[in-house]
Amino acid sequence: MTDHRTEPRRRGDQLLSAIHDAVLAELAEHGYAAVTMETVAQRARTGKASLYRRWPTRVEMIMDAIYSRLPADDSMIDTGSLRSDLIMLFERFVGELAGPVGVALRGLWAESLGDREQHARVRGYSRNGGLRLLRTIIMRAAARGEIDPAAITDQRVEAGPAILRYRILLDGRPFEVAALVDEVVLPLLTVPVTEGVQPVSGSPARP
Amino acid sequence: MTDHRTEPRRRGDQLLSAIHDAVLAELAEHGYAAVTMETVAQRARTGKASLYRRWPTRVEMIMDAIYSRLPADDSMIDTGSLRSDLIMLFERFVGELAGPVGVALRGLWAESLGDREQHARVRGYSRNGGLRLLRTIIMRAAARGEIDPAAITDQRVEAGPAILRYRILLDGRPFEVAALVDEVVLPLLTVPVTEGVQPVSGSPARP
Repeated sequence: MTDHRTEPRRRGDQLLSAIHDAVLAELAEHGYAAVTMETVAQRARTGKASLYRRWPTRVEMIMDAIYSRLPADDSMIDTGSLRSDLIMLFERFVGELAGPVGVALRGLWAESLGDREQHARVRGYSRNGGLRLLRTIIMRAAARGEIDPAAITDQRVEAGPAILRYRILLDGRPFEVAALVDEVVLPLLTVPVTEGVQPVSGSPARP
Repeated sequence: MTDHRTEPRRRGDQLLSAIHDAVLAELAEHGYAAVTMETVAQRARTGKASLYRRWPTRVEMIMDAIYSRLPADDSMIDTGSLRSDLIMLFERFVGELAGPVGVALRGLWAESLGDREQHARVRGYSRNGGLRLLRTIIMRAAARGEIDPAAITDQRVEAGPAILRYRILLDGRPFEVAALVDEVVLPLLTVPVTEGVQPVSGSPARP
């Protein structure tokens, strides 16, 4: 054990960033189970009290670390085409699930699947940054006239990320982003919302 | 411990059915962790050797038990309307996830999320009976002329069950079958497959 009280004091933001780095590094190098208040405090060269002041348990600390690093900036994906934007964003989701964020989510969900209380805590900490980004991309396409705003519903916006997460985390079969976008995500954003089935031929929409 | 060798010998089918019953009862009463070769053999009034003769580990035994009880018979869902058939089938999926099948899947997935080898074994044992039923229902609707067969792709057939499982098992927020069917599943089966976005106005389909 090192006594970090003799080192120069770090400002709040600096220390928080060092803790987030430490969590992500532990996840990447040693996996979910290795991320404890102990290992993170050591790696971030701080005391456990600094951690407990911020988060009641390791679950909240891990959630905070992974959500702090997910890009919430939508300006990075703006190709001018909805299809290209969607493929870029979904490829980014796939990349996240392949790295420390994926390690953390697998660990958190493995624990939560049998524990409703922890499940609610994990949910409560989620910032849904990915869904916000997706919504921004879709609304921009609607503003450009590429799709009809009336086709956009929460169920439809959330369909793509739900399928992607299910396929990668639980189902485990090979998965192609372009096929998901072309066969499911894009068509869903172009067909009007109606109750019941539209006939194959005849007039395409209700008044 | 009871010596079951003194009881009348059961035929293979009878014994298999008793073992399946025992697995499902243990799942329902004591949860996933309680289902071991030991507890199941006791409950089914057989020896552990009978179990190991059939399945190498408890994982295969549990998978076999839950898939044996999922209805594979499509004649039970045939209302004459695709929308009603879909709502009935998806309600059945929700019901399964609320019972012993859901307990087993949560347990199997919780173990598999951090263990790729077990994940592959779980996948390998899945019989995809639910997907087969869904495909049958959709193909019947196509045969009736309710939908265009050209709109049906694997990605689209699998979208609904993937969203349902993600929402119920991982996401955990309240979930409405009718909204999923009306906003996502049905529209996906009525819009042609195209690459890129269809314009909002103008002719609705390719030649």
